[in-house]
Amino acid sequence: MTQVPSEPLVDTLCIVGPGLIGSSVLRAARADGLIARRTIATDIDPAVCARVRELDIADEVDTDPSKAVADADVVMLCVPVGAIAPVARALYPHLKPGAIMTDTGSVKRSVLADLDGALPPGAAYVPAHPMAGTEHSGPDAGFATLFVDRWCLLTPRADTPPDATARIVALWERLGARTRIMDPEHHDNVCAMVSHLPHLIAFTICGTADQLAEDTRGEVLDYAASGFRDFTRVAASDPVMWRDIFLHNREALLAMLDRFRADADAMAEAIRHGDADRIVETIRRGREIRRSLIENRQA
Amino acid sequence: MTQVPSEPLVDTLCIVGPGLIGSSVLRAARADGLIARRTIATDIDPAVCARVRELDIADEVDTDPSKAVADADVVMLCVPVGAIAPVARALYPHLKPGAIMTDTGSVKRSVLADLDGALPPGAAYVPAHPMAGTEHSGPDAGFATLFVDRWCLLTPRADTPPDATARIVALWERLGARTRIMDPEHHDNVCAMVSHLPHLIAFTICGTADQLAEDTRGEVLDYAASGFRDFTRVAASDPVMWRDIFLHNREALLAMLDRFRADADAMAEAIRHGDADRIVETIRRGREIRRSLIENRQA
Ligand SMILES: NC(=O)c1ccc[n+]([C@@H]2O[C@H](COP(=O)([O-])OP(=O)(O)OC[C@H]3O[C@@H](n4cnc5c(N)ncnc54)[C@H](OP(=O)(O)O)[C@@H]3O)[C@@H](O)[C@H]2O)c1
Ligand SMILES: NC(=O)c1ccc[n+]([C@@H]2O[C@H](COP(=O)([O-])OP(=O)(O)OC[C@H]3O[C@@H](n4cnc5c(N)ncnc54)[C@H](OP(=O)(O)O)[C@@H]3O)[C@@H](O)[C@H]2O)c1
Repeated sequence: MTQVPSEPLVDTLCIVGPGLIGSSVLRAARADGLIARRTIATDIDPAVCARVRELDIADEVDTDPSKAVADADVVMLCVPVGAIAPVARALYPHLKPGAIMTDTGSVKRSVLADLDGALPPGAAYVPAHPMAGTEHSGPDAGFATLFVDRWCLLTPRADTPPDATARIVALWERLGARTRIMDPEHHDNVCAMVSHLPHLIAFTICGTADQLAEDTRGEVLDYAASGFRDFTRVAASDPVMWRDIFLHNREALLAMLDRFRADADAMAEAIRHGDADRIVETIRRGREIRRSLIENRQA
Repeated sequence: MTQVPSEPLVDTLCIVGPGLIGSSVLRAARADGLIARRTIATDIDPAVCARVRELDIADEVDTDPSKAVADADVVMLCVPVGAIAPVARALYPHLKPGAIMTDTGSVKRSVLADLDGALPPGAAYVPAHPMAGTEHSGPDAGFATLFVDRWCLLTPRADTPPDATARIVALWERLGARTRIMDPEHHDNVCAMVSHLPHLIAFTICGTADQLAEDTRGEVLDYAASGFRDFTRVAASDPVMWRDIFLHNREALLAMLDRFRADADAMAEAIRHGDADRIVETIRRGREIRRSLIENRQA
C-alpha cells in the first residue's frame, strides 16, 4: 500500500479490440509508464488497426491476433460480448505459458460458461468488467482517464489462480478504478438493473416516439429538451455491443423487465382508477430512493 | 419587431403560487423592468408567502389571493394542475374588468373543460405551458433565466379574445421563451410522450430497484453511475405536481404507455427468441432518432 511502484506492473500488454474501452487502456498505459513496459494492439478489422497506428496509442500494432498475443504477459479482450468466448478459444493455443487472459465484457455468466478450452500450462483467465463507458465507440472515442474512480468488477471462478486475479486487480487499480470481486450471476443481475434495463427502455421509447403520427413526432423532437432527451441519451450507444449484451444476459434482463412491467402495470391501474394515494406513494418512494440513497452514496 | 419597448408590458402582474415556475417569473420581472411595473405574489401556504417576502422577489405579497388579484392586469396561476380550475373559478369574481388570467399548467384539455365560470366583463383566460423546469420545486428553486430559449405552448380556445392571447405571447417572449399556439388535445399528446411517460417510467423503475433483494439493491445504488442515475434524474420531482399531471392527462398518458408496453413486449420477445436481427433493427432505429433528429434539431 505504501510502496511506490518503480517498474511497470505488466511487461507486455496486448489489447484485442482497441475500441472505446481498449483504446482507453492503451492511452492510460501511454500516460502512466508504470502500467506496461510495452503495448501491442490487434483487431480483426484492418481499418481499426490502421487508425490505432495513426493515433499512435500503442507501441506495436499487429493485424494478426494470433501473432499479437504470442509475446504478451497479459492479453485483454475488449471485443463485443458475443466475440469474447470465440476469440478467447481461438487465441488460447497462441498464449505463452504463464500468460493471463482477461476481458472487459459487460456480461459474465453465459460468457464464462463458453470459455472452456485448453489454456497453456500456467496460463489463467480472469473475467473483469470496468463499469465505465460512454455512448460512443471505436478507437477515437477512448481517453486515458475513463476508468478513474469508476468500479471494475471481477468475477473469477473457483479454479482461477488467486495470484492471476490479484494481478488484474492491481492493473485496474493502476488504471484508476476501484475493484470488487463478485459472483458472475450476481454481477449479471446487478448490471441488468443498473445498465441493461435502462438501455432497453431507452431504445424502446425512441422507437415508440418514431411510430407516432408525423405531426406529433415532429413536436416530440422539438420539445425533447423536456425530459425525453436526457432520458434517451444512452440510446445513442452501439447496436452490436447492445445486441450482444441483451442476448447474453437474456435471463437476468428478462426477469428485471418482468418486474418493471408488473410495476408499470400497477401504476397504470392506479392512474386509470384515479387512485391518487397509490400514485403519490409510488412517486414518493421512487423519489426517496433517487434522493437519499443515490445522491448520498454517489455525491 | 424593430421597436424597442420603453414601458412595461404589464402594469400589475399577480403570481398565484410562487413556486419554481412562479418565482422564476417574479425574478425575471425584477431583473427586466420591461415585464411588469409592479408584481404581487400570493399563495395558500403562509410559509410560502413568508419565504417570498424574505427572498424579496415580489413588490408585494398578500396571503389572501382574492385581495392579491383585485388590482392585477395579468393573473398567472402557477399552482399544481389539479388546483388550476378550482383556484381560477374561486378568483374570477375578484378580477378587475379587462384582466387576463393565465396559467402555466403541464396539462391542458381536462383543465380547460373545468374552467367554465363567470369571468368579469372583458376579462379573458389564456392557457399556457412553459416547457421549462427542473426537478426542484418551491420559491427557492426558481431563477430568472429559466425560460430563456425554451418553448412556451399556448392553447387558447375558439372564444379566447385574440388580443388577450397576443399579450400573453408577448409576456412569454419577454421572459425569453419561444412561443407556439396549438390545440389542447395535441398539446397533451405531445407532452405525454415528451415528458409524462419518461417521468412515469423513471418513478416506476426506482420502485422496481427498491424491491430487489437487499444485497442486489445496495449494489444497484453503488453502481448507479452506469446509466441508472441519469435515467432516473427526473424521478426527483415533486409528488403532488406529478400526481396531478398523471391524473389530469390520464387518457393521453395511458395511450402512450400502451404503445410503449407493446414495443417493450416485442423487444422482450425478440430477446427471448434470440432474434438478433430484430434486436439490432430496434436498437438502430432508436439510435437513429436519438442521433440524427434530436442532436441536429436541438444541438
Ligand atoms: N462502451 C461501454 O460503455 C462499455 C463499458 C464497459 C464494458 N464494455 C464492454 O467492453 C467491450 C468493448 O466495448 P467497446 O465499447 O470498447 O466497443 P467498441 O468501441 O465497439 O470496440 C470493440 C472493438 O472490438 C473489435 N472486434 C469485434 N469483434 C472482434 C473479433 N472477433 N476479434 C477482434 N476484434 C473484434 C471491433 O472491431 P469492429 O469495429 O470492426 O467491430 C472494435 O474495434 C464489450 O464487451 C463491451 O460490452 C463496454
Ligand atoms: N416544475 C416543472 O418542471 C414545471 C414545468 C412546466 C410547468 N409546470 C407547471 O407549473 C405549475 C407550478 O409548478 P411548480 O414546479 O412551480 O410547482 P411548485 O414549485 O410546487 O409551486 C406551486 C405553488 O403553488 C402553491 N399552491 C398549491 N395549491 C395552491 C392553491 N390551491 N392556491 C394557491 N397556491 C397553491 C404551492 O403551495 P404549497 O407549497 O403549499 O403546496 C406552491 O407554492 C404546475 O401546474 C406545473 O404542472 C411545472
